[in-house]
Amino acid sequence: MSSALSHLLVLGGARSGKSRYAQGRAEALAGELIYLASAQAFDDEMRERIALHRADRGPRWSTVEAPLELAEAITVYSTPETVVLVDCLTLWASNLMLAERDTAAATEGLTRSLSAARGPVILVANEVGLGIVPDNALARRFRDVAGRINQEIAALVEEAVIMFAGLPLTLKPKG
Amino acid sequence: MSSALSHLLVLGGARSGKSRYAQGRAEALAGELIYLASAQAFDDEMRERIALHRADRGPRWSTVEAPLELAEAITVYSTPETVVLVDCLTLWASNLMLAERDTAAATEGLTRSLSAARGPVILVANEVGLGIVPDNALARRFRDVAGRINQEIAALVEEAVIMFAGLPLTLKPKG
Amino acid sequence: MSSALSHLLVLGGARSGKSRYAQGRAEALAGELIYLASAQAFDDEMRERIALHRADRGPRWSTVEAPLELAEAITVYSTPETVVLVDCLTLWASNLMLAERDTAAATEGLTRSLSAARGPVILVANEVGLGIVPDNALARRFRDVAGRINQEIAALVEEAVIMFAGLPLTLKPKG
Repeated sequence: MSSALSHLLVLGGARSGKSRYAQGRAEALAGELIYLASAQAFDDEMRERIALHRADRGPRWSTVEAPLELAEAITVYSTPETVVLVDCLTLWASNLMLAERDTAAATEGLTRSLSAARGPVILVANEVGLGIVPDNALARRFRDVAGRINQEIAALVEEAVIMFAGLPLTLKPKG
Repeated sequence: MSSALSHLLVLGGARSGKSRYAQGRAEALAGELIYLASAQAFDDEMRERIALHRADRGPRWSTVEAPLELAEAITVYSTPETVVLVDCLTLWASNLMLAERDTAAATEGLTRSLSAARGPVILVANEVGLGIVPDNALARRFRDVAGRINQEIAALVEEAVIMFAGLPLTLKPKG
Repeated sequence: MSSALSHLLVLGGARSGKSRYAQGRAEALAGELIYLASAQAFDDEMRERIALHRADRGPRWSTVEAPLELAEAITVYSTPETVVLVDCLTLWASNLMLAERDTAAATEGLTRSLSAARGPVILVANEVGLGIVPDNALARRFRDVAGRINQEIAALVEEAVIMFAGLPLTLKPKG
């Protein structure tokens, strides 16, 4: 049996320590640890990051690649005996846009799978909307899509934090 | 009679839910609801956003366009019977710069009109300074102007929050 | 004798009021005030900013330029009779990268000098990771370096805040 069924959203900027914090929260729970990776290695920079992150997590974790079919992966891997970590929603949004999927429909599917999850799910997401308005329309649309996903998931989870410099600030306290 | 005369600043990034939160706070107060819109429709993308936002607000609201003469609009529309929502200060700053107005003088005019307002004013503003330093000098100057306006208004209001993923964090608690 | 030996990190975006807040916190402590400036004047825009900031600080402050040898400067200037203000770590990171120094080694040197400091040190840093992923690899690497420095220093200091619109939010409460 894993811990009480309660979902957590970990928001943060680049290098804010959000993945590490989320992993620590997952490891503090009982159950098998499943890492749902949104990352796809398109180039050497990404390949290097992915390998480093996988080594960081250590042997307690099983890694499952879910660049697009995230809702389906949660449905399969969330059980009363597992803790699922989704890292991260923003890369997933980017993957959806590159694959020309309907992001609103995919987000609805994700919220349904979270509501039906049988174990705790921890979701990592980037906050990308606090810089100057991007020059190109695609980046602006990405910012909109990522922000909407963050709002929908934040409304649904039991707890939400935002990370700055490795330190969590509570946005939504756990009941 | 509207509620106690107390001004609120709602800061946030793109798609942080700041306009929606500000509207909810305004609608919770008694009085006529006046929406002071900074937006000007220069292209189809903006026209679409403006129309969507106006439809979102619903019929309780009157919309007044105030792309530049914001201080004057507050002086006219803030009464003991109204709640004024300014959306948003950052677009207003951008409009001032495009029109080659003196932004410091305009900000001083705004703070004077807020101090003299006869009803509550809720102000929305973007936080745009948490990305990489922009390449071009104009974007850097815009960031400076927007940040200075935010600081001056934050010092003056009775309450300030910053939004992340639709959730407010209190920066300045109301009395 | 200066106040209790306790270090403070002041994070924030551009024009968030972080330098002003840090200066106020330093001035509230007893002791000589030493300003360790990371800024180097490469062009007129920087020269103007530096002169304005120096005038802002007033006559209680001594300014020491430390664009690269920050750890050494802290070792020299931090005494039981001084309060040292480092402004800012992010510009220091940028200087290190331009000079092709080893940023990880420099950060380790900085943490050692902070641990050995004989008086309070207040450190200002930019949060630059909350915008869209930058197009060029150098900017992405800078974001990584700056973020790692912020995390290491945040883990070490006794108190950390992040500024928005001139208002501090506590990330790590002092004892």
